[in-house]
Amino acid sequence: MRNRFCKSPLWECSEELIQVAQGERPAELVIRHANLVSVTTHEILPDTDIAVSCGRVAYLGLGEHTAEHCIGPDTKVVDARGLYATPGLMDSHIHVESAMIGVAEYARAVVPHGTTGIFCDPHEVGNVTGLPGVRAMFEDARRVPLKAMMTPPSCVPAVHGVEDTGASITAEDIADTMAWDNVVALGEMMNFPGVLAREGNALGEIRETLAADRVVTGHFPSPDRDRALNAYVAAGVSSCHESGSFDEVLAKLRLGMYVQLRQGSAWLNLPGYLPQLVASGVDTRLCLLCSDDNHPHTLVDEGHMDRILRTAVELGLDPVTALQMATINCAQYFGLAHDMGSVTPGKCADIVLYDDLESFRARMTFIDGELVAEDGRALFDVAPYEWPDFMTHTMNLGFEPTPETFRVPAPGRSDGTARVRAMGIEPGDTITRNIVVEVPVRDGALLADREHDVLKVAVFDRHHGSAGTHAFGFVTGFGIHGALAQTVSHDAHNLLVMGDNDEDMALAAKTLAECGGGEVAVADGQVLALVELPVCGLMSTERVEVVAEKVAAARRAWEQMGCSMPSPFMTMGVMSLACVPELRLTNRGYVNCLTFEMEDLLP
Amino acid sequence: MRNRFCKSPLWECSEELIQVAQGERPAELVIRHANLVSVTTHEILPDTDIAVSCGRVAYLGLGEHTAEHCIGPDTKVVDARGLYATPGLMDSHIHVESAMIGVAEYARAVVPHGTTGIFCDPHEVGNVTGLPGVRAMFEDARRVPLKAMMTPPSCVPAVHGVEDTGASITAEDIADTMAWDNVVALGEMMNFPGVLAREGNALGEIRETLAADRVVTGHFPSPDRDRALNAYVAAGVSSCHESGSFDEVLAKLRLGMYVQLRQGSAWLNLPGYLPQLVASGVDTRLCLLCSDDNHPHTLVDEGHMDRILRTAVELGLDPVTALQMATINCAQYFGLAHDMGSVTPGKCADIVLYDDLESFRARMTFIDGELVAEDGRALFDVAPYEWPDFMTHTMNLGFEPTPETFRVPAPGRSDGTARVRAMGIEPGDTITRNIVVEVPVRDGALLADREHDVLKVAVFDRHHGSAGTHAFGFVTGFGIHGALAQTVSHDAHNLLVMGDNDEDMALAAKTLAECGGGEVAVADGQVLALVELPVCGLMSTERVEVVAEKVAAARRAWEQMGCSMPSPFMTMGVMSLACVPELRLTNRGYVNCLTFEMEDLLP
Repeated sequence: MRNRFCKSPLWECSEELIQVAQGERPAELVIRHANLVSVTTHEILPDTDIAVSCGRVAYLGLGEHTAEHCIGPDTKVVDARGLYATPGLMDSHIHVESAMIGVAEYARAVVPHGTTGIFCDPHEVGNVTGLPGVRAMFEDARRVPLKAMMTPPSCVPAVHGVEDTGASITAEDIADTMAWDNVVALGEMMNFPGVLAREGNALGEIRETLAADRVVTGHFPSPDRDRALNAYVAAGVSSCHESGSFDEVLAKLRLGMYVQLRQGSAWLNLPGYLPQLVASGVDTRLCLLCSDDNHPHTLVDEGHMDRILRTAVELGLDPVTALQMATINCAQYFGLAHDMGSVTPGKCADIVLYDDLESFRARMTFIDGELVAEDGRALFDVAPYEWPDFMTHTMNLGFEPTPETFRVPAPGRSDGTARVRAMGIEPGDTITRNIVVEVPVRDGALLADREHDVLKVAVFDRHHGSAGTHAFGFVTGFGIHGALAQTVSHDAHNLLVMGDNDEDMALAAKTLAECGGGEVAVADGQVLALVELPVCGLMSTERVEVVAEKVAAARRAWEQMGCSMPSPFMTMGVMSLACVPELRLTNRGYVNCLTFEMEDLLP
Repeated sequence: MRNRFCKSPLWECSEELIQVAQGERPAELVIRHANLVSVTTHEILPDTDIAVSCGRVAYLGLGEHTAEHCIGPDTKVVDARGLYATPGLMDSHIHVESAMIGVAEYARAVVPHGTTGIFCDPHEVGNVTGLPGVRAMFEDARRVPLKAMMTPPSCVPAVHGVEDTGASITAEDIADTMAWDNVVALGEMMNFPGVLAREGNALGEIRETLAADRVVTGHFPSPDRDRALNAYVAAGVSSCHESGSFDEVLAKLRLGMYVQLRQGSAWLNLPGYLPQLVASGVDTRLCLLCSDDNHPHTLVDEGHMDRILRTAVELGLDPVTALQMATINCAQYFGLAHDMGSVTPGKCADIVLYDDLESFRARMTFIDGELVAEDGRALFDVAPYEWPDFMTHTMNLGFEPTPETFRVPAPGRSDGTARVRAMGIEPGDTITRNIVVEVPVRDGALLADREHDVLKVAVFDRHHGSAGTHAFGFVTGFGIHGALAQTVSHDAHNLLVMGDNDEDMALAAKTLAECGGGEVAVADGQVLALVELPVCGLMSTERVEVVAEKVAAARRAWEQMGCSMPSPFMTMGVMSLACVPELRLTNRGYVNCLTFEMEDLLP
């Protein structure tokens, strides 16, 4: 696939490369004396010179050979003695929105860690704005050296008929995106039940992608690794990042799937299967690495693909094998190995210099032969992206939230208590239990019960104005006093508010409505913390470091309000995610995620 | 790349596959209880069931799972207990013409051995007829189940300015072929000096191929594995089958080239590097297998890719690794791994059942789920191809050969002897020495000298009729009495005649002129053996077994005439090959293949 991720296609600069290799013309850049990680032979080649011109590798000086003949007066020479040169790292599956920033800012955060390519699925923006927002993400990405390979979201909405999203994406839409020059694959086909049931739109999206000579990335968390997995693979889905055990990984590899081994901010899968994978000795050519979701603080505090490599090596994986997973394997899967994934002649000069293959501390990152980051700092900068209006005005509630908004009627119930259906949170897990609890009834309304940690929850359709609907529910497990609200609420990203009193809930909702979305913590009439995410209610326009600090402040506010669970923001963010068991609340009401039927608040 | 090598594209049959995998619809074929060679994980999976529908794998029953749910009343069930199921074998580089038959007949010969795909470069036909003949080869190929992936010849003529071929192929021609639906790559770019010198047509052919999203296959026998090899790779050439040592193989792999390990009829390279490759432990994902040239008797007596696998395993290569080289590695290189190269759901059901992974004796070969060969016999048959006239009338000498035709004038030399330049044959090698010998002069003409084993040689342009030229030379090393002639004469495939007397030479030439080309042995006015190759003077219209027997008869005739060298036919066939050192004779005269200058007969 000849996408526009390189400075120029090989055939436009091959004459120059031929000359440079033979010493007939000076190189633009020569990296000298590096320990080159050869991902094609699985070797470390000591004291290697690398000559680069027009953004591509022209020559490797191996063994007794040097690139001295490629050096002219204007050649930039980098002494890499003692350092390890690797191909630029690639994240095979990532939702940029989880970091609450756009792709350009993401690039600033990850390129200094050695990431030169990401395969991103703007699934969240897709749910809020549809394809136009997806395209804006792509346009933002073009402004930075990071290569942002795009995989348009396939499942918008993720589950049909149980919630209202801002948009939907059809097979015809997907056919359109295949003509975009940076689209390399279909985004994760989460709708595996649809594929198994031969649902028209799911199969249509797969068809349009395969016919455009691109790959279909997957998402298959089902325990049925026999008939269902076979059918899913036979349908044309060729990768998956949803594996929890070595048995799952192995089953997928045996069926010819590429398996994206995942270590994100919240989903820490590597320890669950990597040691066994290493011990098994199976071929890992179909293994890729991915983060899926990174929170801003992970990027700021821990890094990106370097962090995953560190973990993989700590878990016993050979570092060169780990690097293959983050480079050549990924490039081969997506059909880009002619341009990327190895430091060999003719390939784009996407090269990282690391101190060692244990800490993976990056000294320099080159993309297309340009030095783009050094010692932890990006050397490029871009102005904040001018997001289009339709992306910065997505809080379309159609009303002004007041305490009265949050009154939950208790039809037929007299004052006292009533049994209501509630979501039972399991701290640190994405599962919710479908339970029944008692709550007070006063003046014909159901109340929260702070003493027993039963909070009221409301979800408002924020996409359809006054035509939108909302629904109420209850939740246990957060243990807070006050109210929390957020618009990062998978997958419809509606306005989600929870609290122990209507006044704080109204203030929380009103605050987000005014700032265009985000995350807010309120107690006793005071806004304790606010993370503004005015772009689609998902992304900030600020620096990742600023966003990370605001999120940290929000976390501190939550603790102050009484919440001690890990990642409460994430846990709250999937309270509407109607494809994960057992009970979820959307703007249409409770969804039983085992039967996929709606359930009443009053059982 | 979505070429037409499968029964139907995946997206047209995915609904059926989904149903079969889930037991909602019976499969067409179920192979039961096989030891499946998993080339994706490098494992042998015992007692595996394989369900096939619409030509593709629908389901693998692994471990405790079976494909019983896929079996209906009309399902063909094959019990493969005790057998090894492997993906169909692929020959990554082959000139079909060397077997003196067309592709359809080639298919009959190789499919029973487990070959299901070949990547063929009709370089010889290209030199005789240009693109129209190449296209006819492709049309012939379509009639059989063997998947013939085409790589149009890039170097026609191979060396410019030293001989006259029947045609030439330009970068514009190559651009045209890239629209043909069975073209997957550019044929071997033998003109590596042209690439290094940035010659326009060579770079143009590479450009057209890369821009069409196809790969450029190579041919790099130069000992310069530093600057020249780097430049050649940087130019976009991504594979090579010309390696004689492990150092060469390793150098190419480190530069990111796919290396086609070769074991043909005459070029037996595996022993020269495979044991060291195994010992090195380097990653072999870029290693492919190829035969390059197979003579008819090799196919009949020894087999095809099975023969190479046997040799590889004998030399110490792990059989699963060897199978990866003949399957998934090859498919990945050519961008066809979505359809071929592994037995996994969604892929074409190109499957071979072998007795074991040592003898590689094939029991059954399936292509697109059809049983196409069993116990050594092809189950398909096609009529002889109706070759177009321009391919069966390529003997265009423009004159009738007589003894007088072979008179070599000795200007200025009086009767007695004269010193002449001659080719010194090294038995069993392709190299010729550039030597000077003494020959008799009688009546102003230079004569052969049977006593001292100096034969006369003549090369006639057979493509341009009366406008064609011819040239004379001498050769030592064959030791025959009589005359030999052939039109298989790389790369122009002109009429090559050698002998110790003009009468027999004239009869040999006349015999080939009359039958449309081939190979003939004459002594004392008698035709001792004749292999008619009326298609381009290169290929027979008969069965491969018949051709093999005729070639064997010719070999016996040569021995009878006094020649004891191995493969004399091959040695003679490269006597005009102007890209191999040191001295060659073409229709334009002697070519010094070290300086690429013409040399006089009389020094």
